[in-house]
Amino acid sequence: MISTALLGFGIVGSGTAEVLTRNQALIESRIGDSFRIRYILDLREFPDSPFAPLIVHDFNTILNDPEISVVAEMMGGSHPAYDFTKALLMAGKSVVTSNKEVVANFGTELLQIARENGVHYLFEASVGGGIPIISPLRKDFSSNRITAISGILNGTTNYILTRMKNEGAAFDDVLRDAQRLGYAERNPAADVEGLDAARKTVILAAMAFGKRLDPNAIHCEGITNITPEDCAYAESAGYAIKLIGHTSLMDGRVVAMVSPRAVRADNPIYGVNDVFNGILVEADMVGKVMFYGPGAGKLPTASAVAADMIEIMSGRTVDAAEWTDAGTDDIADFDGYVCRSLLTFDVPKEQAAGLRAVFGASDYFTGRNGKHTFVTKPMSEAETLARIASAGFPLVSRIRVLD
Amino acid sequence: MISTALLGFGIVGSGTAEVLTRNQALIESRIGDSFRIRYILDLREFPDSPFAPLIVHDFNTILNDPEISVVAEMMGGSHPAYDFTKALLMAGKSVVTSNKEVVANFGTELLQIARENGVHYLFEASVGGGIPIISPLRKDFSSNRITAISGILNGTTNYILTRMKNEGAAFDDVLRDAQRLGYAERNPAADVEGLDAARKTVILAAMAFGKRLDPNAIHCEGITNITPEDCAYAESAGYAIKLIGHTSLMDGRVVAMVSPRAVRADNPIYGVNDVFNGILVEADMVGKVMFYGPGAGKLPTASAVAADMIEIMSGRTVDAAEWTDAGTDDIADFDGYVCRSLLTFDVPKEQAAGLRAVFGASDYFTGRNGKHTFVTKPMSEAETLARIASAGFPLVSRIRVLD
Repeated sequence: MISTALLGFGIVGSGTAEVLTRNQALIESRIGDSFRIRYILDLREFPDSPFAPLIVHDFNTILNDPEISVVAEMMGGSHPAYDFTKALLMAGKSVVTSNKEVVANFGTELLQIARENGVHYLFEASVGGGIPIISPLRKDFSSNRITAISGILNGTTNYILTRMKNEGAAFDDVLRDAQRLGYAERNPAADVEGLDAARKTVILAAMAFGKRLDPNAIHCEGITNITPEDCAYAESAGYAIKLIGHTSLMDGRVVAMVSPRAVRADNPIYGVNDVFNGILVEADMVGKVMFYGPGAGKLPTASAVAADMIEIMSGRTVDAAEWTDAGTDDIADFDGYVCRSLLTFDVPKEQAAGLRAVFGASDYFTGRNGKHTFVTKPMSEAETLARIASAGFPLVSRIRVLD
Repeated sequence: MISTALLGFGIVGSGTAEVLTRNQALIESRIGDSFRIRYILDLREFPDSPFAPLIVHDFNTILNDPEISVVAEMMGGSHPAYDFTKALLMAGKSVVTSNKEVVANFGTELLQIARENGVHYLFEASVGGGIPIISPLRKDFSSNRITAISGILNGTTNYILTRMKNEGAAFDDVLRDAQRLGYAERNPAADVEGLDAARKTVILAAMAFGKRLDPNAIHCEGITNITPEDCAYAESAGYAIKLIGHTSLMDGRVVAMVSPRAVRADNPIYGVNDVFNGILVEADMVGKVMFYGPGAGKLPTASAVAADMIEIMSGRTVDAAEWTDAGTDDIADFDGYVCRSLLTFDVPKEQAAGLRAVFGASDYFTGRNGKHTFVTKPMSEAETLARIASAGFPLVSRIRVLD
């Protein structure tokens, strides 16, 4: 009999209790042992819940119970989640989590503490909700060098962008509607300004390249400045605008960034709409593989938390990864990041040729209503900005292309 | 030092040698041990290959070498691949394979022999080429009950259907072109008649439900009868025709089938084009998750073979599965299989209302050139066929809808 505990009985916590209970017999047959949820830590009481007898308010009850060997942390926020996790790992208990903030901020240290104590720290649910992505990166691409990961990592912003594209609606209007429908939080800043995606991008970058960057220091643009016109310019060129977390290597240094990107219709990410997530992994042997599914939600996220618990309970855990915190030399200079851009300038028809003189030929170039839209060749951030400045016409829209 | 052997030095075999060699240092750091390819079994000589010194022609050299602990079988065909695999497992050597024919035909027995001998039989590369799908089914959905799997499992037929849709071209013409380009074999029967997809469907069904069906006995339709008109009728209703391997449960009995299906634009499988594969897993807790990528090819398939070898070499193998061969009571009656259908009848405009009388209301109903196309409500195979027979008009096209 394996004894487990849950930290947090919110959406993911209660979902995890539900998954573990509803499929308990199946899970026990898979791990070859029986298990129980012994405690659920929460500040609140849940008198009407079938799990009410398991609720405890004192973390030390769990920390000091020698029978508890696996704990799922689903509290959210850095503190006390980080502190509890650290204490549990040092006490020789494995921890799994859905808490991307803790993994992105403290993953290096927590993975090391787990190793030193012969236990595990797993975090499948921290990226992509129910979509398996951390586990494939740990296991299924083991014969590959990862070269890049690009993904729609935030369902709220993807829902907003999908509706802006389909309806030509303004950001503010769709956001209000999303809040009303429960797809966006009352304070949507972490979603719409990109921080949620930045944390997930940092986790993916660390899984791919072994270096953890500071999620608050990477290049991060949200979608608050995206207009229906931006969407229309992109659509006219065959692209959709998606909020993309991207990581890759440049001269051996890590690029990690979040920004709106123009995704062409032949990219599998193009069709990832509404609240769904899609994560495209590029690796040297396998090429491009995409993982698609529900990036959030009670039971999907709980499914991933439970999978990590099952991996530990079955006694055949592959270590998550060995990360180091990135030093200055590990991080690519963002000015040097190379991509194509979808640019729209406000330029009189008879002067549009001047744009070609500055940016060179483009396989796409169209003008209407005095606006000219085209896709540049690949060039660095610095060069792109310099050419825009020297174009001599007002820039209306710039969206980086995801190739 | 772990000693391995490869059976077969064709496309996948030579690819596996390349993957293991090019990323050897990386792989050794991941398994925490060194390894070597000691033998490569093939009937041919490869005097110009860097692997020439490893080529052997006598299987017994590998079978009787006590140092060999992991063997990758990439010979194709049932015999002698099955016989060699069985002998190796009985000799206490783990086997991984890309050979879907052997897994689909003999998987139950080989998995049992592996268990009895304390070794492993893994087959990630047998379905979906480089796409992780067997491993996620073994591990990442461990807290779920799988309810259905539907996938584009054959790249050749998807390439042909994609071009038929985009160009309005005929099957025969596109097939010839695909053969010229190397996307279809000179004898394309196993691909275009669906047997390749049927074998993969049987493997997925066994992973999902624990029952292995006979791949030669499941309902299997290929794409040889699909016409450009079928594609046009589907497109007019917002669907694309894909060759889909599907498995699900019906009253606790296994459905496994391969047939062309009409896939609507809001299904993530809709956007899986050209030679790519996409596999949609439905499970009770996580919902729908899709895996997309290269379903064939030298290095992608080799990447999956190598991942299985690495799992075994790292000593943390999760058993593939425990299958039993399906008995008559385990297999659903195909006549009872329920789905919607996209039907096109040849019917004079003034008599089209007669179709509604037979099939009931439909959310889509259009007529042109004397052809009327509509989508039925969900109904069983038997009922669909009976209503078609009683319609009193010639049926031009029937494609099952994938919902």
